[in-house]
Amino acid sequence: MRDVAVIGVDMTQFGRYEDKSIEELAVTPVIGALKDAGIQWKAVEAAYVGHEYQGLAAGQRILAGVGASGIPITNIENACSAGATAFREAYLMIALGMYDIVLALGCEKMDRGLIQQLPDDTWRTLGTDLIPSQFALIARWHMEKYGTTREQFAKVAVKAHRNGVLNPYAQYRKEETVEEVLDSRMISDPITLLMCCPTGDGAAAAILCSMEKAGQFTTNPVKVAASALNSMIYTEGIGTQNFGSCIPSAQSIITVSAREAYEQAGLGPEDLDVVELHDAFATSELIHYEELDLCKAGEGGRLIDEGAVDLGGRIPVNPSGGLLAKGHPLGATGVAQIVEIVWQLRGVCGDRQVEGAKVGLAEVAGTAGVNATHILTR
Amino acid sequence: MRDVAVIGVDMTQFGRYEDKSIEELAVTPVIGALKDAGIQWKAVEAAYVGHEYQGLAAGQRILAGVGASGIPITNIENACSAGATAFREAYLMIALGMYDIVLALGCEKMDRGLIQQLPDDTWRTLGTDLIPSQFALIARWHMEKYGTTREQFAKVAVKAHRNGVLNPYAQYRKEETVEEVLDSRMISDPITLLMCCPTGDGAAAAILCSMEKAGQFTTNPVKVAASALNSMIYTEGIGTQNFGSCIPSAQSIITVSAREAYEQAGLGPEDLDVVELHDAFATSELIHYEELDLCKAGEGGRLIDEGAVDLGGRIPVNPSGGLLAKGHPLGATGVAQIVEIVWQLRGVCGDRQVEGAKVGLAEVAGTAGVNATHILTR
Repeated sequence: MRDVAVIGVDMTQFGRYEDKSIEELAVTPVIGALKDAGIQWKAVEAAYVGHEYQGLAAGQRILAGVGASGIPITNIENACSAGATAFREAYLMIALGMYDIVLALGCEKMDRGLIQQLPDDTWRTLGTDLIPSQFALIARWHMEKYGTTREQFAKVAVKAHRNGVLNPYAQYRKEETVEEVLDSRMISDPITLLMCCPTGDGAAAAILCSMEKAGQFTTNPVKVAASALNSMIYTEGIGTQNFGSCIPSAQSIITVSAREAYEQAGLGPEDLDVVELHDAFATSELIHYEELDLCKAGEGGRLIDEGAVDLGGRIPVNPSGGLLAKGHPLGATGVAQIVEIVWQLRGVCGDRQVEGAKVGLAEVAGTAGVNATHILTR
Repeated sequence: MRDVAVIGVDMTQFGRYEDKSIEELAVTPVIGALKDAGIQWKAVEAAYVGHEYQGLAAGQRILAGVGASGIPITNIENACSAGATAFREAYLMIALGMYDIVLALGCEKMDRGLIQQLPDDTWRTLGTDLIPSQFALIARWHMEKYGTTREQFAKVAVKAHRNGVLNPYAQYRKEETVEEVLDSRMISDPITLLMCCPTGDGAAAAILCSMEKAGQFTTNPVKVAASALNSMIYTEGIGTQNFGSCIPSAQSIITVSAREAYEQAGLGPEDLDVVELHDAFATSELIHYEELDLCKAGEGGRLIDEGAVDLGGRIPVNPSGGLLAKGHPLGATGVAQIVEIVWQLRGVCGDRQVEGAKVGLAEVAGTAGVNATHILTR
């Protein structure tokens, strides 16, 4: 496979864009990414567009805004991993030699309230069909098995909001204390309101290019060192990807995907300088530390206590503010994580910059059973 | 690029499955295609699943029914071309050397009535936001420019229903006369009810394999000789793909896609033995004859008058009954067309068999601006 670079990125601030259509919202970062790459739209040979709820052929409608040119445009739906899957398809088409320049776009205008409902009756076997309850069960399991505390989960949210203040692209830019997080409305014990990602809209775009041609456009390409996509392992009708090792017979799909990515990149978790991971809930971020092998099983709480995942820590996680503060427009998230990693590796993140970052990982997990992991290097 | 074969196919009869979930409905042809290929699910390295309205990560839920195995599963949405786009991604991943065996699945449970509404405000500049009205305008243009008659459009529907009677997978299996078609309820002049495809559910699956490995499974592989995907060319905000040359400045996207496919295959329209094309309305089938270069511009009416597109004619079109009689569950259609072509090339179509068929074309057009063309050979 050929080496592939990201040569242009951009995103909207995440937030509530009540008066903007998806076409208006999502074309903005496409134009920004083209400018960033220093190329014109007509140089793009194919496009992959990740979203969930934007209706028939949203990608075609959006890209008409830059002047559609007859190229193949493929809309990707893969739950929370839609944007990352679009990025992966773009990556593979270049790595495998089909094209030289491909656009990956992730975008979403969220239907307010829609997403709380799980798509699948099978979850009801656990006594719930609401997403927060599902994640609360996983958190309770972690508390019982490892003694993880509510305060440790709250600290994840506090970190996210502290980082969000530093990120002009974040939906929420307000610090929160451990007390404020714990005292906010209980959603599903132990998950409180401030441990949940918000509902919001947004879009993020990346221009990928074969490494051999990237030098024509940039002196500072960011390399896609790994791309892994895995789908759920069902056990008796229940997807286990979010349950990690709490179902003894099944390995976490997040771990499967991460280890595949580490192997592709020839790197290990100890080589990472910065991570953007799927903190749809504060509780899941802490468990993801373990599933991504950033620490051993049961040590997620210690990692947050020690500040290892803070800016300035051993392995900063979600310097962007993550889904909790930056926001989570479903289809946009996977590409937005990669945009943040690219900016971190370029060293242009200002107050939230991880100094000297050279290796970054982006990981996104779908409730519906999809996990995508990318590693970028420079 | 490597040669790619289709080694297994299957589909459900199209129809109304009120009591079946998409998971139950769509897993059936997956199992059928695996059996047809003589392989087990665990041999499949990746899956692409085309659909429009099946909710978050439908492919993951459906394929859990054959025992999800952690492989990459990617859901594709591309309007009426969703299934064909899923097939194309599967094809490319093998042709480019990423995998040896990939599943393409198209499926849909239709939301009754949902699809009539166009997704895009821009169509309203033509004074309509309903799909039949859009196609009626194109038909009126063809009548005015070339003298095409209502009777000629009606004959397309008559042919479809005559073929549908012969196809056990068709939703409608009842002959209709020209008079019955013309006397059925007027939907949007000149389109009557029997010139419209029905609303229905269904699923179709294909197992693709590198040609070099196909010999392990079959002595009769069908080769994918071409795969083209093109997206709309907008002119002043209006996608022209369905307007053909009625907007003088823009070439029909259907023609662009078809000629790209002919070039890939090293074949021309004169080499085709059988065609499955996108007759969402009888009127559009007639115009597609011209856009696919089966005849010259303006000669579509003569083609149907002469019986050239009938079973036994010079170039049989839609022996399956097409969308008009077989049905049109959106995401399923693109794969179902390919299933029919594979069966035709294998010579197993019974009463609707095109004798000695060796080259077949499948073409699907999205109202929202996507066109996919595949050519299969044996």
